[in-house]
Amino acid sequence: MATIEQLKTMANKLRIHSLRMTTTAGSGHPTTCLSAAEIMSVLFFSIMKKEDEFILSKGHAAPILWAAFAEAGLIEREELKNLRRIDSVLEGHPTARMPLIKVASGSLGQGLSAGVGMALAKKLDHAAGRVFVLQGDGETAEGSIWEAADCAGQYRLDNLVVVVDANRLGQSGPTRHGHDLAAYERKFRAFGWEAEVVDGHDVQSLLAAFDKTGSGGKPLAVVAKTFKGRGISFLEDKEGWHGKPLNEKELQAALDEIGRADVTLPSAYSPSRPAFTFHDYPSDNYSRNDMISTRVAYGKALLALGRADGRVVAIDGDVKNSTMAEDFFKAFPGRSFEAYIAEQNMAGMAMGFSAMGFVPYVATFAAFLTRAHDFIRMAQYSGANITFVGSHAGVSIGADGPSQMGLEDLSMFLSMAEALVLYPCDGVSTAKLVRETARHVGISYLRTTRDKTPVLYGNNEEFPCGGLKVLRRTEHDQALIVGCGITVHEALKAHDILKGKGIAARVIDLYSLQPLPEADLEHQAAECGGKVVVTEDHYGGVIAGLVARAVGKVTSLHVKEIPRSGTSAELLAMMGIDSQAIVHSTEALAKQ
Amino acid sequence: MATIEQLKTMANKLRIHSLRMTTTAGSGHPTTCLSAAEIMSVLFFSIMKKEDEFILSKGHAAPILWAAFAEAGLIEREELKNLRRIDSVLEGHPTARMPLIKVASGSLGQGLSAGVGMALAKKLDHAAGRVFVLQGDGETAEGSIWEAADCAGQYRLDNLVVVVDANRLGQSGPTRHGHDLAAYERKFRAFGWEAEVVDGHDVQSLLAAFDKTGSGGKPLAVVAKTFKGRGISFLEDKEGWHGKPLNEKELQAALDEIGRADVTLPSAYSPSRPAFTFHDYPSDNYSRNDMISTRVAYGKALLALGRADGRVVAIDGDVKNSTMAEDFFKAFPGRSFEAYIAEQNMAGMAMGFSAMGFVPYVATFAAFLTRAHDFIRMAQYSGANITFVGSHAGVSIGADGPSQMGLEDLSMFLSMAEALVLYPCDGVSTAKLVRETARHVGISYLRTTRDKTPVLYGNNEEFPCGGLKVLRRTEHDQALIVGCGITVHEALKAHDILKGKGIAARVIDLYSLQPLPEADLEHQAAECGGKVVVTEDHYGGVIAGLVARAVGKVTSLHVKEIPRSGTSAELLAMMGIDSQAIVHSTEALAKQ
Repeated sequence: MATIEQLKTMANKLRIHSLRMTTTAGSGHPTTCLSAAEIMSVLFFSIMKKEDEFILSKGHAAPILWAAFAEAGLIEREELKNLRRIDSVLEGHPTARMPLIKVASGSLGQGLSAGVGMALAKKLDHAAGRVFVLQGDGETAEGSIWEAADCAGQYRLDNLVVVVDANRLGQSGPTRHGHDLAAYERKFRAFGWEAEVVDGHDVQSLLAAFDKTGSGGKPLAVVAKTFKGRGISFLEDKEGWHGKPLNEKELQAALDEIGRADVTLPSAYSPSRPAFTFHDYPSDNYSRNDMISTRVAYGKALLALGRADGRVVAIDGDVKNSTMAEDFFKAFPGRSFEAYIAEQNMAGMAMGFSAMGFVPYVATFAAFLTRAHDFIRMAQYSGANITFVGSHAGVSIGADGPSQMGLEDLSMFLSMAEALVLYPCDGVSTAKLVRETARHVGISYLRTTRDKTPVLYGNNEEFPCGGLKVLRRTEHDQALIVGCGITVHEALKAHDILKGKGIAARVIDLYSLQPLPEADLEHQAAECGGKVVVTEDHYGGVIAGLVARAVGKVTSLHVKEIPRSGTSAELLAMMGIDSQAIVHSTEALAKQ
Repeated sequence: MATIEQLKTMANKLRIHSLRMTTTAGSGHPTTCLSAAEIMSVLFFSIMKKEDEFILSKGHAAPILWAAFAEAGLIEREELKNLRRIDSVLEGHPTARMPLIKVASGSLGQGLSAGVGMALAKKLDHAAGRVFVLQGDGETAEGSIWEAADCAGQYRLDNLVVVVDANRLGQSGPTRHGHDLAAYERKFRAFGWEAEVVDGHDVQSLLAAFDKTGSGGKPLAVVAKTFKGRGISFLEDKEGWHGKPLNEKELQAALDEIGRADVTLPSAYSPSRPAFTFHDYPSDNYSRNDMISTRVAYGKALLALGRADGRVVAIDGDVKNSTMAEDFFKAFPGRSFEAYIAEQNMAGMAMGFSAMGFVPYVATFAAFLTRAHDFIRMAQYSGANITFVGSHAGVSIGADGPSQMGLEDLSMFLSMAEALVLYPCDGVSTAKLVRETARHVGISYLRTTRDKTPVLYGNNEEFPCGGLKVLRRTEHDQALIVGCGITVHEALKAHDILKGKGIAARVIDLYSLQPLPEADLEHQAAECGGKVVVTEDHYGGVIAGLVARAVGKVTSLHVKEIPRSGTSAELLAMMGIDSQAIVHSTEALAKQ
């Protein structure tokens, strides 16, 4: 057991690392590390057991997390020098590029939802250990914190602990509550939590607070009164130091103030990311021309998947009788979670479940997934394995009006570099594409339709990612019609009308939007004289844009993979959008 | 003054309208109207004065709002028959298509933020009257409610009243708290509100509760215990009736239960939407080749605009020293609002300010605007006049890592049918484009960059919406390079390198992404042999998609305007994505 003195010294050692690292990097957030030093020391070198989990919700304090990893023997101390370098996994904010990170952070107010998911996952697995979430005071302004708090209170997650590092100062000024710590205590209690205010720089008080967890079957909030820049006279409790590293001279003065910090301590904390295994299973069968909506087919497909894989969990935002996730909810109540109308926490919980090796399926109206956009965006940086399903896509839902129509969901998911984006048009393709989402480890998106549509495909048809289906074809087609989901059926009707007018049109079902069957699209378009009509029940013509790029002569230089920390010039080059990349592409085009 | 009996009878009259309307429409949410009948009767026909404002946050209760409008003499009673019809402004959920609607709803949990903005606007104008927000119990699960509650508590908005219609039942089952009304009371009190639990079907209790407002300088939450389907034996407090109209036989039985409701009452409530006037002003001047980041130029431009127009307000999410909105905050503290790290409420407040005739500028990191995606989406249906500014766009921000990089913001705003999407590359274009956002009544988006870039343009250059700038051009260009923002500068560097290699490339600055200069793009591409390279600091190649559509032969049929309530077939046709539209476009192409 580490002594109080050792833990105090370790806090200072973490301070020294954090200051040095950010000065070396020339950027970063040292002062927010200093406020958390005792908390990190106590958690990493006394409180946390092997079976515990830790989430740094205040992601800009990444340096002290890397420092704690180094002192815990999880990474080399030498590696700390590489903070924020283009070839290092120690990024400015934690991402899954660093193998010990299970939940990326840097967009504030998300860690607690992931913590709720992890704590629930532990309950489901009857697993020991607690989940600790370290968050800032500023981020408690995010409503998502209260969605998560509500959920944790309801499930009485006594294996969940949030530490609020209440250092009083945000980025651009004091936080709303400053050092009125009773305000945080009052809020957490109102949401069903045990809450306690402590001196966040007092090791003994922190140890005592973390000991109390579990009493009363409630989650615990430790509201820690701290000071930003703690321990350095010219930084402590001072405004204007957010996101600023010290220069060499300031660093020396700071290190002189701290003095020696000679200590090494063992840590039991040792996070590891789960592996995922796909269990194949037979898809549902349908009869051709039967009328079934793709959302109903999704409900059946999720049920089949749930039978095949006991790690599949479903999360709903009080629309399970519309998305049809209710089939799964009825069959597997233990693996079904009602997030109520709180889509951010719904997505955040999924992030937590995924981090623990579960396979979450999250469904709501496509329109309401926009509510969780920032969480979905961040899930990709956590390397999460989540399938999002958006029902009630497009204007075809009819009379409920635009607020209920998903008209931006494809833009949202297509702007995630590595997400799978699939859009079935009938029962068979829905069943097969749900299987593809299960096979894919990463973010998947499946778009479903409210109204019934006829089954077009035979049960033996396969729908590989990156494919398309040619539904109508002659040797002398004069134009290509690209349909997706509901508009496939409109395209087929159009085909017949055109045929009556003596015009031969090819019709394809572009069910895989990402990855896109570029070569096949180009080929089909060429066979139809390069004349292409794309029809989509969505704003902005984003599918048309994808098709136009594939069939035309436009070279697109954009960010095609998840970027990282580095300099601006390094990143523009690495992502292939800098002057050299332009030169290369333009030269190639010009010489064609 | 209406008597208690008259108000009770009016509640039943509103019930009758709501039941009849939804049965006639064949869809809609009658039971959620029935729980709110006494609340609506009391507010519309006794409590609300001419100077008061009302927001129906539980937008699915639209029928009872239309009914109250009719009984208040604001619309014809005959019009109620047209609920949800394609040619009616009485949509399934309230939108700005209906001229009396100042804040659209239908995505839950947004009304209170708009209410906060309206209440603040009233304070700013020293205007009398209160703002009433009627919300459901289910939507209190949305974190945005608590962002708004926090903000209202902080500003001590004693002119704001929220009514929680706690009818116990959500869409797919009971709400989290059911009829544990003390839970809501506890939460609102913890967030700095006065809160009171009342019988929501007791007219006298409601009148007394609304009378109390203003005491103690706090906002007031009236937590009303109600029953979904109240007043009809086979609907009241029953599950399975969300979003279901009665059939003719059920309707008759229901009307028989209610009996006669003969009453007419005057209402003082009379909402009107503000008009906006653009006050022109001189833009900031810069010297060519000076180095200035577009975010710094934005700060200066907002300041200049603020001087020209006293209705301009700025809202920040604790990053004003990064977006550079802080120049405005320092100059106009009375018109500056710190929303803290709560982007949904930030956007919702802006919606409220806009509804009261202010001109809000909302800036944060582009990445964090995703947090408010659903609010931004809904703002377009409110007809709101808001400029969103996203700073720190793209990988060019460098070392902070992907969580801080705006890589999806353009996709987000380009998927709004009527938004202005502008992307300046230097100081002059930033200043001029800010002026364009001020001129535009609607949603505008301006994307800014972190790093300094050289001033390219002279101060007399104009930047009309829907334009582009040709920066490098010869008579024999072999390829066209399209740059945007930061990549304009990369494109210029590439041009010089290519010139050294004997390749003539044209370079354009595509500062106006929506509206897009389609014809000019096509012309420029044609002059460069149809060889086009598009480079963008963003995921998905969305700019390339726009360009490819403009220069290629792909016809895009997608949703190009804000849709409305109607049948599926009507809407597919009206939006031009049905089989007839496909036939028309394909025929035209095939005959080319």
